[in-house]
Amino acid sequence: MSERGMADGGGRIVALCGGVGGAKLALGLTHVVPSDRLTIVVNTGDDFRHCGLHVSPDIDTVLYTLSGRANQETGWGRANESWRFMAAMAEVGGETWFALGDTDLALHAARTARLAAGDSLTAITRDIAARFGIAAGILPATDQPVATIVDTDEGSLPFQRYFVERRCAPRIRAIRFAGAPGAVPTEEVRSALAAPDLAAIVICPSNPYLSIDPILAIPGMRNLVAGSAAPVVAVSPLVGGQAVKGPLAKIMGELGRDLVPASILDHYDGLVDVLLVDRQDAAHARDPRMRLAQTLMTSLDDRIALARSVLETASTAGPGARG
Amino acid sequence: MSERGMADGGGRIVALCGGVGGAKLALGLTHVVPSDRLTIVVNTGDDFRHCGLHVSPDIDTVLYTLSGRANQETGWGRANESWRFMAAMAEVGGETWFALGDTDLALHAARTARLAAGDSLTAITRDIAARFGIAAGILPATDQPVATIVDTDEGSLPFQRYFVERRCAPRIRAIRFAGAPGAVPTEEVRSALAAPDLAAIVICPSNPYLSIDPILAIPGMRNLVAGSAAPVVAVSPLVGGQAVKGPLAKIMGELGRDLVPASILDHYDGLVDVLLVDRQDAAHARDPRMRLAQTLMTSLDDRIALARSVLETASTAGPGARG
Repeated sequence: MSERGMADGGGRIVALCGGVGGAKLALGLTHVVPSDRLTIVVNTGDDFRHCGLHVSPDIDTVLYTLSGRANQETGWGRANESWRFMAAMAEVGGETWFALGDTDLALHAARTARLAAGDSLTAITRDIAARFGIAAGILPATDQPVATIVDTDEGSLPFQRYFVERRCAPRIRAIRFAGAPGAVPTEEVRSALAAPDLAAIVICPSNPYLSIDPILAIPGMRNLVAGSAAPVVAVSPLVGGQAVKGPLAKIMGELGRDLVPASILDHYDGLVDVLLVDRQDAAHARDPRMRLAQTLMTSLDDRIALARSVLETASTAGPGARG
Repeated sequence: MSERGMADGGGRIVALCGGVGGAKLALGLTHVVPSDRLTIVVNTGDDFRHCGLHVSPDIDTVLYTLSGRANQETGWGRANESWRFMAAMAEVGGETWFALGDTDLALHAARTARLAAGDSLTAITRDIAARFGIAAGILPATDQPVATIVDTDEGSLPFQRYFVERRCAPRIRAIRFAGAPGAVPTEEVRSALAAPDLAAIVICPSNPYLSIDPILAIPGMRNLVAGSAAPVVAVSPLVGGQAVKGPLAKIMGELGRDLVPASILDHYDGLVDVLLVDRQDAAHARDPRMRLAQTLMTSLDDRIALARSVLETASTAGPGARG
């Protein structure tokens, strides 16, 4: 078997992902899977309208990451960004809690104009990806509005208000996905997940509650994953009993979940065949559906190595364990 | 009489204006009239939604001009502007026909956010003016949407598409103001025009058809001006039989109007007591309602001098000639 492994064996790969952590593995996958066989299905629950602009934070993170435009220092936004717009916003008393760089703004403005003209988020994302030279497919999970709402001890907050403005400080009681009952997976997502030559479905190490659940909350999506003949491999976002980044550990605590891989596997119960767990958590990986890998991705090599681990795991997993 | 002249004699001044040319005289007025007695009523017919943002070109030009932020080279937008947003828009295939500078964008975004929150354009404009250190009153003519539509030989065009994207190339057949029948002058505009100590109403040398007419098309506005006990002084936008700037001469030709002051006076018939005409057009200033002044404003001194001429004219005009 060549270095390119399973992917060369044929087979398409579909990955579900959110923002930063998920985008890292998605980038790794682009180095291992031929681009015409790779589809990234991205969370849209973080999307919101801000100052009239339609912002899609996770789609943008994936677009920036896969095209080499991501800001490595911040973990969000664009590299070589400037902030004159934000300074002017402060001057005129505008909202400044959500940082919008001068060049990042262009994606939101271009997207908003095309949405207003009746184009779908799917078509807009495809065209921007092409402009950025990204050959892999990047698909919003749905073209309908799905909004992650966080019910907290300070009341219900739209996701970005909770995540950015309040820096995840309020205690979470529940997480809802407004609009999800009326949403459907796009035709493109359905086709990708139903492809006869699908070799694996990958659930990236994104936040299961905030990044993957909004995808799975779209009616029909869960069945498309659970009912697939292809193996489903998730990567645990926990490393050494902690979240690599973001509010996952805090949220799991507030929701009464232990910070162990078993909590992630429980969360994905019935959906995944294998959960890839970091070697640091080997002591907690007693379930036969768990396998070990290095999941912490600090370098590009790490991202590529994890992508390989995921594909190797899928090639030897076979479906059915989740039934 | 002191240098400050009529303004010190008491009396409030209300000026109706559009963008560039009107804003120049408005700036001159701020040097001659105490700011608590000066109100600038601004055209909103150019307002439009672009990429989700509410853009108010004439209000912004007045805000930038009166606060020393105007770009002197371009005649629109802000000084010390940067264009990284526009470069990024081109990169992602976004709309680039309407130039939005990185700092100019902030006004549109802040305004859009507050409009979405239910604030009025009047309140938003007042707050931004205060942030910019402008003491004179700047009032949108109305808080309801009024959109200038240009009927041309290429069909009907929203104003900015005609003005910016098509650079006024299509031949005009008629000009309409969509939404005007449902609009009302704001309470603030009505109060300013009905002030008992109103000393003059000034119609700035803006384009009568594109900048002043959208204000006058608002039901009740014409009567507020024509019925005022204060003298109404308009400044002709023609100098030497030409428009100083913009498409006025072309439009007058297409509408079958001669490029002489009499055409402007006819247009404002029943509305103004005096039309100030540039000395270059003395040969065409035979109507007793016309008076001569230097109306071309190239320097700040010119702006201030014309403002003084307008006030002197008003102080000796007395109302009634228009009856």
